[in-house]
Amino acid sequence: MSGHLYGVGTGPGDPELLTLKAARIIAGADVVAFFAKRGNSSNARAIVAEHMRPGQIEEALDYPVTTEIHRHHTDYRQQIGDFYAEAAARIAVHLDAGRSVAVLSEGDPLFYGSYMHLHVRLAPHYPTEVIPGITAMSGCWSSAGLPLVQGDEVLTVLPGTLDEAELVRRLEDSDGAVIMKLGRNLPKVRRALAAANRLADAVYVERGTMANGQSVRLADKPDDTAPYFSLLLVAGWSERP
Amino acid sequence: MSGHLYGVGTGPGDPELLTLKAARIIAGADVVAFFAKRGNSSNARAIVAEHMRPGQIEEALDYPVTTEIHRHHTDYRQQIGDFYAEAAARIAVHLDAGRSVAVLSEGDPLFYGSYMHLHVRLAPHYPTEVIPGITAMSGCWSSAGLPLVQGDEVLTVLPGTLDEAELVRRLEDSDGAVIMKLGRNLPKVRRALAAANRLADAVYVERGTMANGQSVRLADKPDDTAPYFSLLLVAGWSERP
Repeated sequence: MSGHLYGVGTGPGDPELLTLKAARIIAGADVVAFFAKRGNSSNARAIVAEHMRPGQIEEALDYPVTTEIHRHHTDYRQQIGDFYAEAAARIAVHLDAGRSVAVLSEGDPLFYGSYMHLHVRLAPHYPTEVIPGITAMSGCWSSAGLPLVQGDEVLTVLPGTLDEAELVRRLEDSDGAVIMKLGRNLPKVRRALAAANRLADAVYVERGTMANGQSVRLADKPDDTAPYFSLLLVAGWSERP
Repeated sequence: MSGHLYGVGTGPGDPELLTLKAARIIAGADVVAFFAKRGNSSNARAIVAEHMRPGQIEEALDYPVTTEIHRHHTDYRQQIGDFYAEAAARIAVHLDAGRSVAVLSEGDPLFYGSYMHLHVRLAPHYPTEVIPGITAMSGCWSSAGLPLVQGDEVLTVLPGTLDEAELVRRLEDSDGAVIMKLGRNLPKVRRALAAANRLADAVYVERGTMANGQSVRLADKPDDTAPYFSLLLVAGWSERP
């Protein structure tokens, strides 16, 4: 009898934004696995630490590369592909031995999550269940108190890595928008928002659901520094009864 | 001292998909308020029932109209506007008396939620906090085990009420997509997916996080019936390392 695989969303950072189900699955799992950048501790593990049991087996899956090599470079794709295959094989050893494995995933596992790479490799072969988590964008618009979209509006989730012209085109064509992966892209994103006439609607949120989180209208933010855990929200909802 | 207003996401249906924070806020609130269609019980209240305390004040906010009048008709907008104003006034009475109020919202409060109408009326005047919830779309792709978007992909959330040509255009322009509000729109949405060459990627999910939920490739679904709690997921994620 093989063990169950669980992809478990930990939510965006605040340990209280874990679901009741995620807390139960983590506490009951034989093995808890999590991704981290090599040399760093795992954010996901820190979020759920209070639900883990002494003696639980832990599998730290350390990325061999993150931003040192460009993600479209063949070396990156080769190394990261090998890494996911090896990580899946390590999880499979536990599942084959009948041990249940909870793979932690910040935010929601199947929404831009690293867990997806294990899911496609393991779910066809083992009993699998995915526990959704609060996404970072949901944590951010909640902490900012910003109503995002309503009724028949269209929401677009955009990576800040898109070309400036492409960002302008898509922002002009959306009611509400979320822009992720800001980092060095913020100056370009700011220009695109201005060109699409949406700068006034844009709210910048940094560490949305952590103790030191903050939100500010982008037009009022004087600099263009943006850490990895930041995003922009462009509210839709023009037709309020 | 006025009471605190809490917009509380209940998640998509499974009571275990409530967050730890939502459970704590609901249990501690002086007043629990919830929307419902007149004559029906509240889904949101049913989801959180086990966290409510005996003696807690309940405020049922019953919609005067839902689908009897078209939502763009001026009578609808007038009636629903009056309703939200009156509901906000009822909540304000409690807040003014120093009582904390948890307003339940299925899914996530600020993502297509009815709570938004109370938030814009009350948040400027009272201490307010929004507790995010698992969205219906997140519950559905998790229950279907369907990886949705990854890396630099664009996700579009579309209402099925859009024109067929507009649906085609937007589906051709998205990596991943979620289509909500199916109902009578499913035949049109199916044609649009076929025209955009995305029918093979579309998964239909009904009651995604309830006991009797199910998912099926849309191409394999023989009929075009779709209850209100159903949606379509179009997976992106073409470039897997």
